[in-house]
Amino acid sequence: MAPTPVNRSRLLALLRDEGPLSRVALGERLGVPRAALSAELGRLGEVGLVEEGGPAASRGGRRSVLVRLAAELRVLAVAVGATSVTVAVADGRCEVLARVTEESDVRDGPVVVLERVVRLAARVRELAPGRVVAAGVGLPGPVSFRDGVPVAPPIMPGWDRYPVRDELAARWGCPVAVDNDVNAMALGERHAGVARSLEDLLFVKVGTGVGCGIVLGGRVYRGVAGAAGDIGHIRLEEDGPVCACGGTGCLEAWFSGAALARDAVGLARSGRSPLLAAGLAERGGLTARDVGVAASAGDYAAAGLVRDGGRRLGQVVASLVSFLNPGMVVIGGGVSGLGHSLLAEVRGVVHRRSLPLATGNLPIVLSELGDEAGVVGAAWTATERVFAV
Amino acid sequence: MAPTPVNRSRLLALLRDEGPLSRVALGERLGVPRAALSAELGRLGEVGLVEEGGPAASRGGRRSVLVRLAAELRVLAVAVGATSVTVAVADGRCEVLARVTEESDVRDGPVVVLERVVRLAARVRELAPGRVVAAGVGLPGPVSFRDGVPVAPPIMPGWDRYPVRDELAARWGCPVAVDNDVNAMALGERHAGVARSLEDLLFVKVGTGVGCGIVLGGRVYRGVAGAAGDIGHIRLEEDGPVCACGGTGCLEAWFSGAALARDAVGLARSGRSPLLAAGLAERGGLTARDVGVAASAGDYAAAGLVRDGGRRLGQVVASLVSFLNPGMVVIGGGVSGLGHSLLAEVRGVVHRRSLPLATGNLPIVLSELGDEAGVVGAAWTATERVFAV
Repeated sequence: MAPTPVNRSRLLALLRDEGPLSRVALGERLGVPRAALSAELGRLGEVGLVEEGGPAASRGGRRSVLVRLAAELRVLAVAVGATSVTVAVADGRCEVLARVTEESDVRDGPVVVLERVVRLAARVRELAPGRVVAAGVGLPGPVSFRDGVPVAPPIMPGWDRYPVRDELAARWGCPVAVDNDVNAMALGERHAGVARSLEDLLFVKVGTGVGCGIVLGGRVYRGVAGAAGDIGHIRLEEDGPVCACGGTGCLEAWFSGAALARDAVGLARSGRSPLLAAGLAERGGLTARDVGVAASAGDYAAAGLVRDGGRRLGQVVASLVSFLNPGMVVIGGGVSGLGHSLLAEVRGVVHRRSLPLATGNLPIVLSELGDEAGVVGAAWTATERVFAV
Repeated sequence: MAPTPVNRSRLLALLRDEGPLSRVALGERLGVPRAALSAELGRLGEVGLVEEGGPAASRGGRRSVLVRLAAELRVLAVAVGATSVTVAVADGRCEVLARVTEESDVRDGPVVVLERVVRLAARVRELAPGRVVAAGVGLPGPVSFRDGVPVAPPIMPGWDRYPVRDELAARWGCPVAVDNDVNAMALGERHAGVARSLEDLLFVKVGTGVGCGIVLGGRVYRGVAGAAGDIGHIRLEEDGPVCACGGTGCLEAWFSGAALARDAVGLARSGRSPLLAAGLAERGGLTARDVGVAASAGDYAAAGLVRDGGRRLGQVVASLVSFLNPGMVVIGGGVSGLGHSLLAEVRGVVHRRSLPLATGNLPIVLSELGDEAGVVGAAWTATERVFAV
C-alpha cells in the first residue's frame, strides 16, 4: 500500500505559521487528495494536536470547515540569560500567553538555575493552563543542539555538558529542545518579527556579550561544534581592551553592554560627560542604558560612545555581509535600545565597505520583538520538535 | 498506484561518488525493493545513463551484477580565469580525461572568451570522445546560479548579465550550469580532494584576487544575490593599499597574487631583496611565484612578504571560523603554491584568535587538486544538473 502522501510536519507548520485554514485550503497547499488529508487530520485530532474551528468563510460551493492547532496546546519557552531567567507559556502558534522573569546569575550553575526554571515554569503554567506538549530552552553559550547540552560555554562555569535537555524532559515529561540564545532570538524574529518568512538572515545580538544567529535557507546554521555565530571574539585591532576570553581587541571588548558600562564610568570620571557623572554619583554605577539616555539628551561624549561602538559593530557586520550575502541583518539584544543612532552608524559602515551587490537590497534593522524574541524562538523550536514526530 | 520509491538522483550520485556497485549493494543503500530498483535501472539504461559492468564479487548466495554510470558519458568542464581558460572533458564520475588550457584575458569580453571556450571544447572532445550530457562553467566573479549569468562582476567588463548558460547550452545542445569559480573549486575539492565527503567547509582561494567557496550541509551557499564568499574586500585596516574595488585596506589589496607581485617589485627596487632584484632585472617583472621561490631559497625579505600575507589572511580566516565554525578550511589558488610557510602562519593566527571550541578539530590544509579543483567542481555541478532530471 502506498504510504500516506501527507507531509505531517508541513501541515502542522502551516497551521502554526498561518493560523486556522479550511480543509480545502489545506488540501490545496499540501497538494494532497481530500481523503488522505481527512485521514491524517483524524489521526492528528486523536493525539490532540489539531481540532476543528467552525465553518470557514464560503468560497462558493460546499462549505469547508476550519482546521486549527488545538487551542489547549501549550509550549514552555525558557530564556536563560547571563543575569536573568525568563519562562513563558505559548500556544501552538508560539504566541506568548504568559511570562515571568527573575534575576538570576548564570554562574550559580545548572542545578540552581534549572531549579529556578522549574519553579518559574510551574508558576507560569498556572497563568495559562493547557496541555504542555514540548519545551524550548535558550542558553547564553554554545550548545550541542543534537545532544541538548552546553559545550564549553565561556560565561557559564559548571554547565559544560550538563544534561539540560534530559533533565528538563524528565521533570516536565515532554520533549525539550535546547539551543543557543541567539539562535532562538533569530528564529523568534523570523517567526513573528521583522524577518518574518525570510530564508536567509543574520541576527546580531549585542547584550552583555555579542553573538550572531545565522539562518540560512530557513534553518539555523550551528556549525560543526555548535559554535557558529561566535562573533564577539572577532578581533578588530591588535591593541585593544582586554576581553573576558583572555584575548585583546575583540569586538565584545570594544562594544557590548559590559564594554559600554565600563567606558561610561571612564567618561564620567574623566569629567567629559556631565550627565554620566551625575548618574554615576547618584547610582554608584552605570549601564548601557545610561549611555543611551545621556546620548539622547545631547551628551556629546555619550553620543561619541554610541558612534564608536556602532562603527566597530559595523566593521564586523560588513565582513559578515561580504562573506554570506544575507537577505537581512537584524540587530537585537539590550544594546539595540541605543536605537537609530546605532543603526545609522552600522548602516553607514556596511554600505561603505561591502560591495553593492551584497548591500543593494539589504535591510539592516532593529529587532521588532525585543525582549520577547528569545522566548518566541524557544517556543518555535519546541513546536518543531513536536511537529516532526 | 504508489510512485516508485527509488530516489533517482541519489542512485546516480552514489554511482558517481563511489563507483560501480552491485545491484544488491545499491538496493541496500537506497533502501528499496529489488523490483523497484530493477525497473528504475531499466529506465536509466534506456536513456543511456547507467549500464551493467560485469559480475560483482560474490558475497555468498546469488551472484549480483555490477551497475555503473555509462562509460561513454562525458561532461564538459570549463574554468574561466582572469588570465586563462581551461576546458576539460570528464567522465560521469568527474574524472578528468583530457584538458586544454589557453591564455585568455577575461576582459576581452564574453563574445571573444566564449568563442575560445567553444573552440577549445571541440578540441578536447576529440581527445576523449563520448556522449556529452552536460557542461559546467566556473566564472571569476559573482554569478546568479539560477539564471546562469554573471552579476556585476568587478573584473569582467562586458559580462554583466550576459546569458552564458543559455548561449553555451544552445551551442552544445545540453544542459549547462554556470557558477562562481571559487564555488566550483570548493565542490571539486569536496568531490575528489582533501575535503572528500565533508559537509561543511570553506575553500579560500588566493589567486589574482581572493574569494571563498562556502559549503554548508553539503551544498554551496551562494547568498541571496550570488555574492557570498566575497572575502577579498573585507577591510583589514583603515589605512592600507588601494584596492581594485576602489576601497583601501581590503584583504585582496594586502595579500593576493596581484598584491604580492606589486610588493615584490617594491622590494626588488628597494635593494632589500637581492634575489627578487635579480629576477626583476632578468625578466622585467615579478609574480607571486617569484616570491615563493625567493622565500624558499632563504631570501629574508621575500619570506617576510609571505609571513605578512599569511598573517593577514589568517586574520580574515579566524573571523570566518569564529562566525561559521566549519569542519575544514582549504587554501587553494595560485598563491597556495607558497605552501607550508603560508599555512603555518594562517594556522597560528587562527588558533590564537578563534575560540578552542571552533578550532579544536579544525584542519587548515592546502588544496589537494590544485589547478584541477575548478574543472573537477565544474564537472560535478554539471552531473548534478543531469542527475536531478
